[in-house]
Amino acid sequence: TLFIKPFKTTTVDQTEDFIRESMRIITEDAVKKATDVREKVCEWHSPEDLKELLDLQLTDEGESDTRILERCRDAIRYSVKTTHPRFFNQLYAGMEPYSMVASFIIEALKPSLYTYEVSPVFTLVEDAVLRKMREVIGWKEGGDGIFNAGGSLSNMYAVNLARYHHCPDVKELGLSAVPRLVLFTSQECHYSISKAAAFLGIGTKNVYVVPSDNRGKMIPTALEELIQTAKSEGAVPFMVNATAGTTVLGAFDPIEEIADICEKHNLWLHVDACWGGAALMSAKHKHLLKGVHRANSVAWNPHKMLMACLQCCAFLVRDKTGLLQRCYSARASYLFQQDKFYDVSYDTGDKSVQCSRKPDAFKFWLMWKALGSKELEQRVDRAFAMAKYLAQEVKKREGFRLLMEPEYANVCFWYIPPSLRDLPDSTELWEKIHKVAPVVKERMMKKGSMMVGYQPHGDKANFFRMIIISPQVSRQDMDFVLDEIDRLGRDL
Amino acid sequence: TLFIKPFKTTTVDQTEDFIRESMRIITEDAVKKATDVREKVCEWHSPEDLKELLDLQLTDEGESDTRILERCRDAIRYSVKTTHPRFFNQLYAGMEPYSMVASFIIEALKPSLYTYEVSPVFTLVEDAVLRKMREVIGWKEGGDGIFNAGGSLSNMYAVNLARYHHCPDVKELGLSAVPRLVLFTSQECHYSISKAAAFLGIGTKNVYVVPSDNRGKMIPTALEELIQTAKSEGAVPFMVNATAGTTVLGAFDPIEEIADICEKHNLWLHVDACWGGAALMSAKHKHLLKGVHRANSVAWNPHKMLMACLQCCAFLVRDKTGLLQRCYSARASYLFQQDKFYDVSYDTGDKSVQCSRKPDAFKFWLMWKALGSKELEQRVDRAFAMAKYLAQEVKKREGFRLLMEPEYANVCFWYIPPSLRDLPDSTELWEKIHKVAPVVKERMMKKGSMMVGYQPHGDKANFFRMIIISPQVSRQDMDFVLDEIDRLGRDL
Repeated sequence: TLFIKPFKTTTVDQTEDFIRESMRIITEDAVKKATDVREKVCEWHSPEDLKELLDLQLTDEGESDTRILERCRDAIRYSVKTTHPRFFNQLYAGMEPYSMVASFIIEALKPSLYTYEVSPVFTLVEDAVLRKMREVIGWKEGGDGIFNAGGSLSNMYAVNLARYHHCPDVKELGLSAVPRLVLFTSQECHYSISKAAAFLGIGTKNVYVVPSDNRGKMIPTALEELIQTAKSEGAVPFMVNATAGTTVLGAFDPIEEIADICEKHNLWLHVDACWGGAALMSAKHKHLLKGVHRANSVAWNPHKMLMACLQCCAFLVRDKTGLLQRCYSARASYLFQQDKFYDVSYDTGDKSVQCSRKPDAFKFWLMWKALGSKELEQRVDRAFAMAKYLAQEVKKREGFRLLMEPEYANVCFWYIPPSLRDLPDSTELWEKIHKVAPVVKERMMKKGSMMVGYQPHGDKANFFRMIIISPQVSRQDMDFVLDEIDRLGRDL
Repeated sequence: TLFIKPFKTTTVDQTEDFIRESMRIITEDAVKKATDVREKVCEWHSPEDLKELLDLQLTDEGESDTRILERCRDAIRYSVKTTHPRFFNQLYAGMEPYSMVASFIIEALKPSLYTYEVSPVFTLVEDAVLRKMREVIGWKEGGDGIFNAGGSLSNMYAVNLARYHHCPDVKELGLSAVPRLVLFTSQECHYSISKAAAFLGIGTKNVYVVPSDNRGKMIPTALEELIQTAKSEGAVPFMVNATAGTTVLGAFDPIEEIADICEKHNLWLHVDACWGGAALMSAKHKHLLKGVHRANSVAWNPHKMLMACLQCCAFLVRDKTGLLQRCYSARASYLFQQDKFYDVSYDTGDKSVQCSRKPDAFKFWLMWKALGSKELEQRVDRAFAMAKYLAQEVKKREGFRLLMEPEYANVCFWYIPPSLRDLPDSTELWEKIHKVAPVVKERMMKKGSMMVGYQPHGDKANFFRMIIISPQVSRQDMDFVLDEIDRLGRDL
């Protein structure tokens, strides 16, 4: 007999049939078709039209399994296929079958990661993955860490941990009892640093923004100056966030020089390597994060470049004294009983800001087991190589203009339609170029041929940002992107 | 051709075979076997033994698909079956097939919820579910909300939003620029309120703990007094957290009376209904949350009593002026471009403290579509009835002692083995009773027959806390629990 006797008037067999049929639909539509290059990346509908198509309303009576299976098909059909080979819109993309299977196992088993008792396998798996990632960072003798629901949350963990390290009293007394605390990050950092400052009660104005150079890297002398400024104001610097792989330009802050400054001023160094951490897997490219072992904490998302399923985000800590647990513990007696019959140091829940927590490390562990470090390295190297190829093509082609040489897998460029190519360089020209990308984007979405992001950035007019991740992407795909932008925008 | 050309020397067909075979294993082992009452709830191994069994180490070379499939089987085998009918250990349990299928769809499609452009279907689904949940709460004319990674996070959203509402300057200036802020919650509340105070820089000592009565309900007069105390100290009260369904005792704070006090003092009222919110689905039991429509915000987790897959957690807001967005916005230009070709008010990402965010609402929406509100109501009513039945049985049986009549689906009781039954009521007796539950728990884990939680609570010795959720649970299962505890503990 199957597991559930639904109140609904389905028999046990019908429920089993439903699951089997839904698995077939998922395999065909959400896996095979969604990743087939001959299919569309998306089937665009406006919010108003899509509401009609989906019939979203929730009612008193339930629907038949047949109808629910149709709804599954529709949800898949109208969703954007982020696993499609032509999806280049975000810092994640592509299908990793081993990780997907791990996800399914997690979903079916419904584990939550707070006590060993409830999640024995996933507790140990998380420990093993964190251990290996710390080793890759270069922390050879232990340390700590936790997987959590997103890189933004990892960065918040870091800010809070740095604050606690600097001033443990804040946990009990709050910020109203201490002088104004200040942290430092570059102008190119992810917006989660500013969100963290707001959420954690530090205040966005107490994030001192360090200028970056033309390549998007933090300028260490500017950091040094800003620390002095803060001190002269009577504020208390406690942390520097360095970014390894910035969101838009893919730049790497000079960690070694920043670490020197942090040591001098006794500041916590956090490295936001959510996007760029993958370079550590590559013997050839890990120099980009030179000095990362000197960081006090690192955020690194295997769901980005390394293609683990969403979300898979590690927050890693160099401390070996239990700082993480002291900072986050609340000692809930209904979960963390001290009279259990096993070693309760395996209960990780009191290190977390969450209560229920998903065992995301398993999605990375299973694929790592399947591929080995060597193949992960080759994939990273290939993304670097492909980005370089695309940049070269951009430089070769008429009507395309590279923003800057890629340092990582972000390739940023403008498309200039024929009508604008002979105009003199002027504010008016750039205002016109600024309007090109949104139209090209609209057209690619409505055609469903690919998805590439665009944005303005600082004083720069809207440009395309290609993100290269998936190992199935080839030179032909890179060529296709440029051809397609030209096809879609040449009449503008 | 299939979606991916792995670097690994598998052919396309082999990858497809791998997925198909893994789906078969998941259906057989993680769904059917895991939920079969004749199987064990868990196969216990100590952390040291399990490490050996799992072979966790990550190495340079990858493994064959055959080996990876074995690893999938092992991960399932050694995991606790939280979907098993005899799992009563946490505030979630049981298998909901419609929600599980929705989870699989999400995992396969890899969506992230920040812009309509990337997640059109799931953006609209979340909106529809939040709308319906607000309607159930009794907010008829709009409002706001967001799904997020756990009830703890929902409660943190509430604390931050209440703070922002009270004093918008905190977002920019931080707490060091304002007087000491204080919030109120009962002694029985979830520990995430204290975690929120620590994380958000408020400080755990600025959480003023209101005494609860014997039933675990906040005492309104004590709240009123504590607010006066705080004011007399020069602190600034800004929020009260009321709990609907406390973690251990399943108690409901008197929302109506608390709302009166909040109105009088102009305080934000947040209702943590993560566990108890499900009672709102029941015409018979929704009186437990009487007055909830007067709250400013509500946290409610459909992954608990309503059995959506983990995690599925809504944070709901009564405000209609865009407070949530103003509080959380960071206006990242690479995501929230204002020159998009569709109505960007559908982009929800700037309301969130996360960047990537999973579309958890879909896991609730699909099951709600399948079951209808009526069946959700019947399920909730059944859990209440079953809790009542169990409490009656506890009272009837020798050697069992009920802590208190259940108000919800938590049934708390002591087991007193024969050797202790005739001893006089004394500190020594309770010290002995305190040691019973941990041993019984150890024995049930090693036998794998069921999982029931225990804890000390205030001055009360360790007692069992049965949580009744799953609609497949019958009176026979309730009887089994008591029989089994007696079997496992009668020699103590």
